[in-house]
Amino acid sequence: MKHLNESAAYNLRVVREKKPLIHNITNFVVMNYTANALLAMGASPVMAHAQNEVEDMVSLAGALVLNIGTLTDDWIDSMIKAAKKASEKGTPIILDPVGSGATALRTDSAKKIIDQARISVIRGNASEILSLRHAESKTKGVDSIHSVEDAAKAAAVLAQELNTTLAITGPVDLITDGKRVIRVANGHPLMGYVTGTGCTATVTIGAFLAVDADPLNATATALAYFGLAGEVAGQNATAPGSFMIQMIDALYTITPEKLKKGCKIEAD
Amino acid sequence: MKHLNESAAYNLRVVREKKPLIHNITNFVVMNYTANALLAMGASPVMAHAQNEVEDMVSLAGALVLNIGTLTDDWIDSMIKAAKKASEKGTPIILDPVGSGATALRTDSAKKIIDQARISVIRGNASEILSLRHAESKTKGVDSIHSVEDAAKAAAVLAQELNTTLAITGPVDLITDGKRVIRVANGHPLMGYVTGTGCTATVTIGAFLAVDADPLNATATALAYFGLAGEVAGQNATAPGSFMIQMIDALYTITPEKLKKGCKIEAD
Amino acid sequence: MKHLNESAAYNLRVVREKKPLIHNITNFVVMNYTANALLAMGASPVMAHAQNEVEDMVSLAGALVLNIGTLTDDWIDSMIKAAKKASEKGTPIILDPVGSGATALRTDSAKKIIDQARISVIRGNASEILSLRHAESKTKGVDSIHSVEDAAKAAAVLAQELNTTLAITGPVDLITDGKRVIRVANGHPLMGYVTGTGCTATVTIGAFLAVDADPLNATATALAYFGLAGEVAGQNATAPGSFMIQMIDALYTITPEKLKKGCKIEAD
Repeated sequence: MKHLNESAAYNLRVVREKKPLIHNITNFVVMNYTANALLAMGASPVMAHAQNEVEDMVSLAGALVLNIGTLTDDWIDSMIKAAKKASEKGTPIILDPVGSGATALRTDSAKKIIDQARISVIRGNASEILSLRHAESKTKGVDSIHSVEDAAKAAAVLAQELNTTLAITGPVDLITDGKRVIRVANGHPLMGYVTGTGCTATVTIGAFLAVDADPLNATATALAYFGLAGEVAGQNATAPGSFMIQMIDALYTITPEKLKKGCKIEAD
Repeated sequence: MKHLNESAAYNLRVVREKKPLIHNITNFVVMNYTANALLAMGASPVMAHAQNEVEDMVSLAGALVLNIGTLTDDWIDSMIKAAKKASEKGTPIILDPVGSGATALRTDSAKKIIDQARISVIRGNASEILSLRHAESKTKGVDSIHSVEDAAKAAAVLAQELNTTLAITGPVDLITDGKRVIRVANGHPLMGYVTGTGCTATVTIGAFLAVDADPLNATATALAYFGLAGEVAGQNATAPGSFMIQMIDALYTITPEKLKKGCKIEAD
Repeated sequence: MKHLNESAAYNLRVVREKKPLIHNITNFVVMNYTANALLAMGASPVMAHAQNEVEDMVSLAGALVLNIGTLTDDWIDSMIKAAKKASEKGTPIILDPVGSGATALRTDSAKKIIDQARISVIRGNASEILSLRHAESKTKGVDSIHSVEDAAKAAAVLAQELNTTLAITGPVDLITDGKRVIRVANGHPLMGYVTGTGCTATVTIGAFLAVDADPLNATATALAYFGLAGEVAGQNATAPGSFMIQMIDALYTITPEKLKKGCKIEAD
């Protein structure tokens, strides 16, 4: 996948040159870590959630990241307000539906956001993504998915229904816009032992969305870069505390050239 | 204390096998660190504080952690709502009354939570714990405590009055359910230079409570494990920044066997 | 500047001896990091924002830190309540107007706080500080500042108008109380890649304000200490993850003697 590898290197280079402002309305647990990740990769993070500020702030931003990890109703209202303004301005939005499917509030809030704005990308694990189906969805539940091919088909159907790009992350990430399917195999097992790894993958996609108009391409290349940072961190750390610090270091030290060589991206 | 050492090793092994979900309603300062600590030890953290979500979330959890470090009235209401549901389901609850005694809001809120739910364990420093006395308590103030024996007696009386297990942490931790008294001497002086060390001790107890039905035993073994993590970190770090990262690493790398050997637990 | 270097060493020594309580009403992103920084330098941090608690808490504190990084109207109300009580008690207040100038809410909120309490020090970057001008200010905009001397003059005029000490931080920090001007050249380029570096400079000033009655002197010596911590960290780390941990370590390990030698402070 020479083309995608080159695209990844290009996107990283442009993020570092343009330093896009990424507006985050996100959860309390990961705010510090995702802000540091965005700075390390070369972007400019801002966190702002007041209802009387989010429209002004998102108007300055290159992308909007919405994350429902520690949601309440007033934060969801702010997310929707910011998302509507972003949609109006053509600013890409990425949604991380943390815990959707686990509680009614999370599932309902994620669906409400999706219904009220044009979301470019939704990133989550398989159960979070599948929880976003409408009642009349043609996609069946997890129990009906028996193979990697089934999963890709179900994801593509759901991406069409939701009119967005879906990124289902795991040992191998699956990205689809309903037509094309890309898989990314970069990553490291210790990523599962650091809180907010998924949320940080999401903000990385946010930064790439700010410089790449094709959501599928932006998502796949961002996830390869983020997964490669995990691999580099795993060469320098054997436990999660050191690993999470090495992840930030790797986001900073990985060069476009290194990324081009290290990408494990495959288009179906 | 061969029995308690073996019990500590057993509890750690079971936490890693069962990966219990620990529902935290906690302060903004420590959320990231305690989530990482829970992941490193093998548990599954979730932070959720919305009043229209906490009952759903706690119903999925193996233990509930309440921490009033950055409280407001609406967060206290959520804590009480979650605590009532947890009490109903028999899910163990641990309370960390951060700063109780320092301001009226903190003292009153801690007492309100205690009055309205069945709390399995309360962990704090001596002044926080003593601030929880009712007006008619037989326990006297700090100034009447002249020896380690006095402190143990006062704690046992208070544990009976509050009908809970108390963990008074410090250079030597004192744990009592009103009848039995256990002391844990594990720890390291740099723990006092990392924010949220006490809060992280609390979530460690939460994880052990999820797998051990005896609150006194769960608390003592958790504090030995947590203190040993401090000792291991202190072998690899001499300043608080590195130390806090090494603490997370140690929670991950300490094996049940190492814990069995390293515990400094004594029953009175 | 032998006198200022000695004063820096003295202030650091007194912070470590007195361990002043620093009350922070600050943003969600940096709370953990600034709390750890305050502990590492020897101070005692507390975060408390409830409107029915802030007056009690600030009454116990040696300094009040206000930071509008993730503001909402109710947090601003708490800041003003705490600031009024602090003013009444003669407790020094430092304001960090994060993002003032970027959105109307931030600019208006920063001005509202300044109007309603006696602020000892305001720390920000050049654009944040200049955004605080009143409509009738004699200070011109950024585009009219053509030299380092112009900047110093504009800052001095604004400090007089706002009746406070201003700290404009950057590669070289400029500190003025309207009469005197001091420059601090300590620092390291990686500080710009760690979220909340500015906010952490602010809490360091807060700790020094708690022990030094002269805001100009407290601010300059604190910024020299904080910048030196960056220099020390930069000797041990080459990427932002490791660097932010080394910063905390350096705040702990820098001795008053080392600070005296390492200060790069110049009075105009």
